[in-house]
Amino acid sequence: MNLQDIETPAVVIDSEILDRNLRTMASYCGEHNLALRPHTKTHKMPEIARLQLRYGSPGITVAKLGEAEVMADAGINDITIVYPLWGESKWKRLTDLAKRVKIGVTMDSFAIAEGISRAAKAAGVEVGIRLEFDTGLRRCGLPLEERAMDVARRVFALPNIRWEGISVYPGHIMGNRKIREQDIPRENERLDRLYSLLDAAGIPYPLVSGGNTPAAFQSHRFHGVTEIRPGTYVFNDRNTVDAESVTYADCAATVLTTVVSTSVPGRAIIDAGSKTLSADTLLSGEGKYHGYIQGHPEYLLDELSEEHGHISIPDGATVHLGDRLRVVPNHVCPCINLHDQVYLVSGEQILDRWKVAGRGKVA
Amino acid sequence: MNLQDIETPAVVIDSEILDRNLRTMASYCGEHNLALRPHTKTHKMPEIARLQLRYGSPGITVAKLGEAEVMADAGINDITIVYPLWGESKWKRLTDLAKRVKIGVTMDSFAIAEGISRAAKAAGVEVGIRLEFDTGLRRCGLPLEERAMDVARRVFALPNIRWEGISVYPGHIMGNRKIREQDIPRENERLDRLYSLLDAAGIPYPLVSGGNTPAAFQSHRFHGVTEIRPGTYVFNDRNTVDAESVTYADCAATVLTTVVSTSVPGRAIIDAGSKTLSADTLLSGEGKYHGYIQGHPEYLLDELSEEHGHISIPDGATVHLGDRLRVVPNHVCPCINLHDQVYLVSGEQILDRWKVAGRGKVA
Repeated sequence: MNLQDIETPAVVIDSEILDRNLRTMASYCGEHNLALRPHTKTHKMPEIARLQLRYGSPGITVAKLGEAEVMADAGINDITIVYPLWGESKWKRLTDLAKRVKIGVTMDSFAIAEGISRAAKAAGVEVGIRLEFDTGLRRCGLPLEERAMDVARRVFALPNIRWEGISVYPGHIMGNRKIREQDIPRENERLDRLYSLLDAAGIPYPLVSGGNTPAAFQSHRFHGVTEIRPGTYVFNDRNTVDAESVTYADCAATVLTTVVSTSVPGRAIIDAGSKTLSADTLLSGEGKYHGYIQGHPEYLLDELSEEHGHISIPDGATVHLGDRLRVVPNHVCPCINLHDQVYLVSGEQILDRWKVAGRGKVA
Repeated sequence: MNLQDIETPAVVIDSEILDRNLRTMASYCGEHNLALRPHTKTHKMPEIARLQLRYGSPGITVAKLGEAEVMADAGINDITIVYPLWGESKWKRLTDLAKRVKIGVTMDSFAIAEGISRAAKAAGVEVGIRLEFDTGLRRCGLPLEERAMDVARRVFALPNIRWEGISVYPGHIMGNRKIREQDIPRENERLDRLYSLLDAAGIPYPLVSGGNTPAAFQSHRFHGVTEIRPGTYVFNDRNTVDAESVTYADCAATVLTTVVSTSVPGRAIIDAGSKTLSADTLLSGEGKYHGYIQGHPEYLLDELSEEHGHISIPDGATVHLGDRLRVVPNHVCPCINLHDQVYLVSGEQILDRWKVAGRGKVA
């Protein structure tokens, strides 16, 4: 089967680019002795998670309990949920998971750690704990202050937990998400402060987990980081190109679309709107376009309705009803999350069809 | 079962508000002798489509062929696809549908109409045709010009089509989507021009389909409109409140969320981010918030990560880990499209769980 045989819109994954992206990140982490625990929220597909393990990852990262369940069902046996889980029902699901796979979880409060410890004790299991600290993102994470050490000490002492260490989200990657040279010493200062506090409190941190895709290849420059959790690197997208960490040749995921209307002068309408590409604008806030049209930098995807992509066509350029265009989305993670399946291709040839098995597992 | 028994995040539909919204629109259309062919892209649930038919609609509107198939499978037998379908494979699916239900489709090109006619002839069926004209939105639609009448004449003459009439998307509802008094004569001028052209060309237009939610209750003021296709009115959302067509008391769909982190001073994190609420900003461009938190106008949902909603909490206000909040999304259509199911409630009591059966039918 060939790409021309499938209906649009459809997500297409280039197998060669995917493989190269996986290899490049694995090599980098190998060279710098960093554990790579990829965040599978980007793809939500067990097939890709298995490739990531084959390239040397000890386990995977997920955002949601439901995603962890899907991955465990698919045979992935080392999963970290980097999300604070609240409530008896979720703690029960978590300890059920701990009966069949190695499971870790991140939180930033004693109440959640204590609830998990209690549930784990009742179930006779052990759950890995990573305490999250805020190095500047101001989302989740305990403050880099003495009072946070009380929380750490109490969590550390809980029964039926496996103390894994600490987790940070790189606070230096904010705003435009481009890493700037001055961000590195600033982040290191914060990390050093955190380590001093932990040392003084006598709390070990065998694992320091950090890192996302835009900053991934700088991870070895951050003090003490032992593990990174990039997600987007498997596919890349217009955001990672915008952050200058890759080029469009490194973008493995595109949305295959068809031109369905050319009635309005200067415009072409494709069958991919915000319910196909997602409404995410660029993280940097730069540029108002909703995706990059491969091979046609002159076509501007300047507006999205739910099912219509509005393209401005410059004077002199022609586009025809039925033309097929491939769009690199602004943000690939929410884009994939809108689809039930993707096509894996080599060139134009379809190799496989993968289900986005973790999609829709919101809880 | 009660709302407190379910895990979050979860979409909750208030059955009383839903029913009132359905009744109000049906009454308005009844009073003004307008056919109500609701756009089911908002909910994608056969259960709600059936309620809409029970309130007197002759049929429904969908955006995608896949949505039409889901609705036909659920027993809905009069469906209009207001989207230009391109390609043999889709025309075959369309004529397969025409064998079992009354089906109509909108397009703005002879090529698509001709393809459908050919497929319909081969299948021995008839497909309803509505030709789309652009009254100002500049998305799809033939221009209000003499040359468009040639297209209309040729489409009208095609075999195996049932000429239903014309379709417009209200061009007057642009930009901030608030209907302004001066928009009405402007739209009427365009409609009158269109009717003159059609009259001169001898093309009948027994049906003139228009109308969306923000302008719905003004539809009787538009010349010649015989049918409207609002979608959002079933639930309403922060956009329709912003357009001053309803209040928050008319919003039937909310996302039930839990506060999962309060570690960062002045903030609370809820378990609903852009993969739960959608990243849609307000259509009006006014206000930067990502939803309205019921009962807490002082809590500002000012940032979304994929799975985190970032709320700014004013000085003096308190919020606790585990608190449950209900969020009215900015745009309910893409929000529902992220969920596999919704809970129907009366107050806090859960009456039913409905599958979002049309979700993910992108093609």
